[in-house]
Amino acid sequence: MAQVDYIINCEFVLADANSGAIKNGSIAVKDGFIFDIFDSRSASVQYEAKRLINRESCLLIPGLINSHTHAAMTLFRGLADDLPLDKWLTEHIFPRESRLTPELIETGTLLACAEMIRGGTTGFVDMYFFEDIIADVVNDVGMRAWLGEGILNFPTPAFASGYEALKETQRLADKWKGHDRINIVVAPHAPYTCSEELLRLSSEMSEKNDYLVIIHVSETRFEVEQSKRERGITPVEYLDKLGLMSDKTIAVHCVHLFDNDIEIICKNNVTVVNCPESHLKLGSGVSPVIKILNSGINVTIGTDGAASNNDLDMFSEMGSASRIQKGINHDPSLLSASQCFSMATLNAAKALKNPLIGSLKKGASADFAIIDLDKPRLRPIYDPVSHIVNVVKDCDVRDTVVNGRFLMEDFSLLTIDWEMLLNKVKNVTI
Amino acid sequence: MAQVDYIINCEFVLADANSGAIKNGSIAVKDGFIFDIFDSRSASVQYEAKRLINRESCLLIPGLINSHTHAAMTLFRGLADDLPLDKWLTEHIFPRESRLTPELIETGTLLACAEMIRGGTTGFVDMYFFEDIIADVVNDVGMRAWLGEGILNFPTPAFASGYEALKETQRLADKWKGHDRINIVVAPHAPYTCSEELLRLSSEMSEKNDYLVIIHVSETRFEVEQSKRERGITPVEYLDKLGLMSDKTIAVHCVHLFDNDIEIICKNNVTVVNCPESHLKLGSGVSPVIKILNSGINVTIGTDGAASNNDLDMFSEMGSASRIQKGINHDPSLLSASQCFSMATLNAAKALKNPLIGSLKKGASADFAIIDLDKPRLRPIYDPVSHIVNVVKDCDVRDTVVNGRFLMEDFSLLTIDWEMLLNKVKNVTI
Repeated sequence: MAQVDYIINCEFVLADANSGAIKNGSIAVKDGFIFDIFDSRSASVQYEAKRLINRESCLLIPGLINSHTHAAMTLFRGLADDLPLDKWLTEHIFPRESRLTPELIETGTLLACAEMIRGGTTGFVDMYFFEDIIADVVNDVGMRAWLGEGILNFPTPAFASGYEALKETQRLADKWKGHDRINIVVAPHAPYTCSEELLRLSSEMSEKNDYLVIIHVSETRFEVEQSKRERGITPVEYLDKLGLMSDKTIAVHCVHLFDNDIEIICKNNVTVVNCPESHLKLGSGVSPVIKILNSGINVTIGTDGAASNNDLDMFSEMGSASRIQKGINHDPSLLSASQCFSMATLNAAKALKNPLIGSLKKGASADFAIIDLDKPRLRPIYDPVSHIVNVVKDCDVRDTVVNGRFLMEDFSLLTIDWEMLLNKVKNVTI
Repeated sequence: MAQVDYIINCEFVLADANSGAIKNGSIAVKDGFIFDIFDSRSASVQYEAKRLINRESCLLIPGLINSHTHAAMTLFRGLADDLPLDKWLTEHIFPRESRLTPELIETGTLLACAEMIRGGTTGFVDMYFFEDIIADVVNDVGMRAWLGEGILNFPTPAFASGYEALKETQRLADKWKGHDRINIVVAPHAPYTCSEELLRLSSEMSEKNDYLVIIHVSETRFEVEQSKRERGITPVEYLDKLGLMSDKTIAVHCVHLFDNDIEIICKNNVTVVNCPESHLKLGSGVSPVIKILNSGINVTIGTDGAASNNDLDMFSEMGSASRIQKGINHDPSLLSASQCFSMATLNAAKALKNPLIGSLKKGASADFAIIDLDKPRLRPIYDPVSHIVNVVKDCDVRDTVVNGRFLMEDFSLLTIDWEMLLNKVKNVTI
């Protein structure tokens, strides 16, 4: 009889978006990995478990991966909504970002991690400032993350120049090399905020070391028009010219694409991150996700920062992603629940080149979330995948586990002192 | 010193969408009405309260009003998503609706009420079948409702003809006359499902008795094209001809309107109900809400039934309403949080001709919800109204009160036996 660390019994276990949920399913976890997934009623399967966890009215799913956020921007949540984009940025966000300190970044990131763990998100891709601090926070709280120090043409709160940010990227990559949860990525902010040289250096660093690149691309109509006016080509064409459209690139936003952009993205196996709620809230528009998916491009989902969302709930983000495409294309069969759920799990794992996350299978990392189903909003339940995308919310998550470790158990955060953090957040002035 | 039933102290009390939140606010309730709203730190105000309720880290707001739903359709939640509209209706919804019984309606409505109370919704407008049963459920659970027996050209599970449904409407209106929470409305289903005679009779009943009318109008492009093809006029023009566009009319959907439709709606003081999530999910499109609002028309928000949403959360509905208009009109300043919050409160009160609900003021009905703010997703808090629309979810509501009576207190439903209901819902086969 094989020994495992623990077994969890659930009403449903959903291994991935494409296979059906196992009714009365169980998973066995050992040393941070999934040892087995099975039907609890099957008498033939027997394990000796140090602990047996019963989650009778629950649905266990792979942990969600937030492919794009600026975690510490939780500090700016709801600070100044309903304003024109330039006014919002120049009068409210930029001045406050310039005053960010390592301490504030720590508090904001911790708050973001608390929110994400609370909502069943086990991993996230971050681009912001002071990623050294952010990496420490993530390491402490036990989440998985892909972290990129923001590289820009002008001074950030952390560095005087993009060159220093690039140097920091290399330093962090060396520091965290081989870590099982922290990954460092190259993060040139956008084609319009980086010089051609910074973009070329980012590309070279990525190519040489096999690092992932995250970059904002074609978010607004203005950005695309400016690029065409100034360079005669689109942002995607420009990045392609500089070697920044590769299979290591995660292109965030892509709201305004031409057919040739889609061809470039497809040909180079670039991943596109859709952030539908932020695109709507900032008035950027709606990404042509159906066209992008139909070209065979890998698409994932991100919340963007809490300043433009205003939360980090990947469940509502999946729902928004699905509904908006059905609505504006006048076709309720588009972007099904299973497609959206894949975008938040399997597709993210593919983009991040980690085959051990994004689905539950023997030998995979034990990254998962357990959803409590016994709430009025979640009954009846005909199809767990429909529920995940259309009705589950962050608050329904009862347990969140990364590498086999419970970061939240029975609705209680285990790796974050919430009372202390709340007190800190209440006293933030920025 | 005036005597009151209870006083609640909160971090914030928000009287309505337009006035700022009172920091450290309190409300005093007596005999089901709001006796006073005041700053708790003001020493001059003193009441003798039978009970003092401390909600230190909470935000108290007027109860939300769901202007359009089919409550019992919770039973069909997530039953068959991602399908073309006709297949969804003819193969999945209609066959099951034909098998609805009074018992199923009771269970489905109770589940909807549990979900709505859980989410701070204190009142809802319903159009469905067996409204006699529904009225009893609503009366028992203590919510406020406006109920209309569905009038259609063909047999419903409840009645063999629209004439019988009209007769039932009159019977229910007489039965519940003068009740302080249950209101009966006339509910011809839609211009394309009612004969001209049924529409005329509905109009006459409304005019004669001063009853409100709820009707689905111009939901899909197909409906509008069919009307123009068959009658040469739009559904709105057709209803206007039949006297069904009046200040007593609540026109649900209005996704596809021409300029003349908007003029008719405006001229006659018709209220428009926006159900953005349902419009998107069914592929109907996006209602021209900005144009409608700019014409001076009263607009409210509804979730529609849970089959096409798939929940009854008015918080996420407000968020979707706001974001979608910003996004498709490429302007982040459109449909502000306070406008959306008004749609779910003040505007609904206006449509339903009840000045005692939709805002908190001395003498108003004590219909309110208390939101627990000490969650990672809800901090920091710069602007309570932004939070209500952009980040609060149903699950954050701690207490829901109608006519001064707690229907949920400290997250526990007081008027619904949730264990028993859950068991019933789990055993529903339809």
